[in-house]
This record gives sequence, structure tokens and C-alpha cells, in this order.
Amino acid sequence: MALGVGDDCALIASEAGAQWAVSTDTLVEHVHFLSDVDPAALGHKALAVSLSDLAACGATPRCFFLALALPSADPAWLERFSDGMYALADLHCCALAGGDTSRSSAGIVITITALGYVPTGDALLRSGARVGDDIWVSGELGDAALGLAFRRGDVDLPQAAAQRVVTKLELPVPRVLLGVRLRELASSAIDLSDGLVGDLRHVMRASGVGAVVNWAQIPRSAVLQQQPIPTQQRLALAGGDDYELLFTAASERRAQVIAVAAGLVPVTRIGIVTSTTGLEVVDEDGAAVDTGMIAFEHF
Amino acid sequence: MALGVGDDCALIASEAGAQWAVSTDTLVEHVHFLSDVDPAALGHKALAVSLSDLAACGATPRCFFLALALPSADPAWLERFSDGMYALADLHCCALAGGDTSRSSAGIVITITALGYVPTGDALLRSGARVGDDIWVSGELGDAALGLAFRRGDVDLPQAAAQRVVTKLELPVPRVLLGVRLRELASSAIDLSDGLVGDLRHVMRASGVGAVVNWAQIPRSAVLQQQPIPTQQRLALAGGDDYELLFTAASERRAQVIAVAAGLVPVTRIGIVTSTTGLEVVDEDGAAVDTGMIAFEHF
Repeated sequence: MALGVGDDCALIASEAGAQWAVSTDTLVEHVHFLSDVDPAALGHKALAVSLSDLAACGATPRCFFLALALPSADPAWLERFSDGMYALADLHCCALAGGDTSRSSAGIVITITALGYVPTGDALLRSGARVGDDIWVSGELGDAALGLAFRRGDVDLPQAAAQRVVTKLELPVPRVLLGVRLRELASSAIDLSDGLVGDLRHVMRASGVGAVVNWAQIPRSAVLQQQPIPTQQRLALAGGDDYELLFTAASERRAQVIAVAAGLVPVTRIGIVTSTTGLEVVDEDGAAVDTGMIAFEHF
Repeated sequence: MALGVGDDCALIASEAGAQWAVSTDTLVEHVHFLSDVDPAALGHKALAVSLSDLAACGATPRCFFLALALPSADPAWLERFSDGMYALADLHCCALAGGDTSRSSAGIVITITALGYVPTGDALLRSGARVGDDIWVSGELGDAALGLAFRRGDVDLPQAAAQRVVTKLELPVPRVLLGVRLRELASSAIDLSDGLVGDLRHVMRASGVGAVVNWAQIPRSAVLQQQPIPTQQRLALAGGDDYELLFTAASERRAQVIAVAAGLVPVTRIGIVTSTTGLEVVDEDGAAVDTGMIAFEHF
């Protein structure tokens, strides 16, 4: 970056042969996060959701802009918020390039705009899925939604289990390096912010394809597997906030996909792209799993 | 733009030989605007303040990202807001490239991140003012602050006068083309969002210089000139929200500065850059005008 915080604009050099990928996300108190959340976790998550969008495009993070509206300026809160945000930013060499801090008339509102770069024409899009491609996900699904249910008092969990799923909710890990490595392998990608069914439908619509997903292959944590099957299905299929990558790749790329993910995060094949226009989720017996449940809505 | 709204990120081509200028600004209900403002004016102003930052760098607007947090989704409100925003965006060929709409737990919060491009190394900065340079402003100062005083009921004005200054407050004109044309002429620039004295001090600090400003030369509208002199001084020197450009240029550039501004907006020389570190504002008799009044604070 030529020039950071302090002038009217930040100035950012163009990258030869590259496109900029830009994503804007807002987190609103009471809507996207609870007021008693650890400010460090909030700082982490606010940046993580934007980096997750960059990851879904296969972009390398470069810098971000922070707009923060706060009811009051609490130095201790701000320090912890910044600590959480900078820890994640430093990990990805993604610099704070500018921002705007305002007084808020009510709750906390955080908007982050993140910029990453990607070789021109190489970005992963939602529209690239082809009939016959494998459908993959990274990590495990449904834990963040279980963490939210626990935080709202809707479910009881042993302490260690609760801590695990609340961490998944509050400190999501954007799959940045996986996204970059998938650029040459995957045919399409999206990050799972609103739940598998809803986000897979975005890919299907953009690509003009259908999909069959095998319920039994959907990766679920040991904690989630302690829940009744209907709860597991609701959380893993329609729970949000996982920030894992959902991507498609030609079946001859299977070994390469597993190789590039090695050491980063487990990846699992959960289904196949079809020429029908619908989404089918089938259980071990081939029976349809009800996906009529609505996609996750932020509380 | 390669790809707009609808994927995880917007993709923007690099401009050969250019840098990106990026600015983020937030407007918060009750803090930066009154709840009864016309939504079309609000849409205009939210984008105008970001374009004004680009103008201060001499950047050509390219695209913008909108994050909108709303207590409720009122289609009529949104349509008027969009109309106001798009009218200004279209005027500057500045496309909406992405965004995020959320429910707000309280008031309206609008964050816009605007991207413009500028030939590498040619951006106008706050740090370029040199001793002996002329100090210039575009337009007339203080009307927006008078409009705010009127809207708050702090001052009475005839109807036509009120309409004029409220328009200056609610529909500021970002000096985009002037900024672009000044790139090769001005030594430094900033946009006047917080008031002349405060913003000139930003330039002085960044450039390591002082300044003398002649009160009599500060351009004021006929409406403002009807106010008592102390009110005129407070509003023109420390009132905010004018979104005019303040810039410095070598004295041999005077004719060129006037030539490039012709047909866009009047520009006025108001003072000179000095080697002292302070700011002096002097009246026609050379007596000091008190600049101890604090810079404009948003209500």
C-alpha cells in the first residue's frame, strides 16, 4: 500500500495481471451478535466474514477498511476489539488501510470492506459448477448453529462441548489459503454463511444445475452427533455461520483437491452436480431428507 | 468491472499505471442526519461524502459498495433513497459494485466505500503544501452549517434563503472533476467536511507548514452575509459539511487554476502557506480573527 490511514483516501497499487476482489459485510448488535460477546471475538469475526468472502473467490487478502459506529467510546472495549481484529489481519498480512469511526445512536454497527487480489480471470465464481462435478465442503457443518442455540439457552451441552461449538460460532476460521489453492482446481465456490441448503442453491442457480447431496457424508462434529437426528439435519443443512467453503470440482481432480487441502482443513465430498434443476438430499437408504426448513436467519 | 453484485465478491480490473484511491464513510441517523430528511437527499449525501474524498485525492470514481442497516424495510423509503444515490452515481459513472443490507436494531446506518483510480504517483495528498503556495477553496463556505442551524431551529431565515442553505447541507456537490483537473496543478488538497480551520490544520500538520488566511477573501453566499459577523465567522471558519475542496498551489499556477475551474465552480484564493507552524486568520485591518472556536462537531 502506498498510503494508509490519515489522508482522504487510501492509495493502493494495482497488481499487474490481477483483479481486485472486494467484499463488504456488516455486523449489527442484537441482529448478528449478542451484546455480551467478547469484543476480541467480535473483532475477529467482523474481519473473518469478509476474509471468508475473499476465500470463496480464491483471492489473496490485501487490505481492509473498517467503519465502526459505537454508542460510546470505551477504551478497554476498543483495545480488545482491535486485538482480536489485528490478530486475524496479521495472520493473513491484511492491513487496515482506512476507516471511519462514528458515534452510534444505538447499538454497535461494524462494516468491513476487504480487498484481495486474484490473477485476472482466475477467480472462483458461483457460476462455474458443471454437471457431474463433485460437491465438496471444508470442515464440519452445523456447529456454529449449535453454538448459537446454546448461547440462546435453547439447548443444554456439557461444558467442553459448549465451549467447542461457541468457539465455532464466535471465532470462525476463514478458509483463505484453501480458497487460493482451489483456484486452479475447483469449478465453483461459495462460503457457507447462510447454511448449506441455501448457499448450495445460490451455486445451483448461478450455474444452472441441480445437485444431489448425501446426508450421511455431511461432516458433523462429535458434539453435533450427540444431538437427535432431526436437530443434526436442521443445523448441518440449514444452520448458518459456519464460514466453511462449499465448492465443486471435476471428479478427476479428487486426489488433487485432497492434496491441496492437506494440512489446512479436512475436505469431504458430499454429493454431485446434476442436470436437474432441483436439490435432493438423500439419506443412507436413498430416501429424501426434508429440506423444507428455511435457511438460517440471523436472530 | 468484471462482475458486480451477486457473487461473494465484486471483481474489479486493475488499471494499468494507476493506483486505487479508497474511502470509507459512515452516516448514522441522529448523529449525521435527522430522521425526517428526504430519503433521496440522504442517498445523494451518503455517496457524495465518499466521492468528495476521492475528489480530494484527484481520483476518478469507479465503483462503490453500500452497507445499509435499516430498522425496517420500507419499499417506498428504499426507492427514494436509491433514486437519490443512483442519480449521483450515474452522473459520475460510478457503479454500485456490491453491498450488504441488514436489519438494524435501532437507527439507520449507511456505510459507503468508494473506489476511484488515479495515475500512479499523481494523487493529491494533504502533505504536499509548500511555503509560499496560495491557499484556495472552491465554492462558498458556511452555508451548510447555516442550513443545519436553520433545521435545528437555531436561526430564522426567509423561505428562499432557508431552501438555499438546506440544499447546501442536504445535497452537497462533490467536486470530482475539479479534483481530477487539479491533479497536475495543486500541491495539496483536502475536502472540507469538518470546517475550514480544522481541515486546513490537517494540511498544515501533514505538510509541516503554517498558514495565513484573509477573512475578507473567504467566499460567503449572499444569505450568509446577512448574518452578524461573529456568526459568519463561526460558520465559514468552523462550520462543517461544505464538501468544497481546499487546496494549495504555487503562485505561478494562478491563471491555470482559474482556467481549469472555469465552468465547474468558482475558486477563490484565501491565503498563503507560511513557514511558521501556526494558523493566522486576519481581517481587512490585519487584526487577528479568533479561531479558538472548536471545529464543527456533528450534532
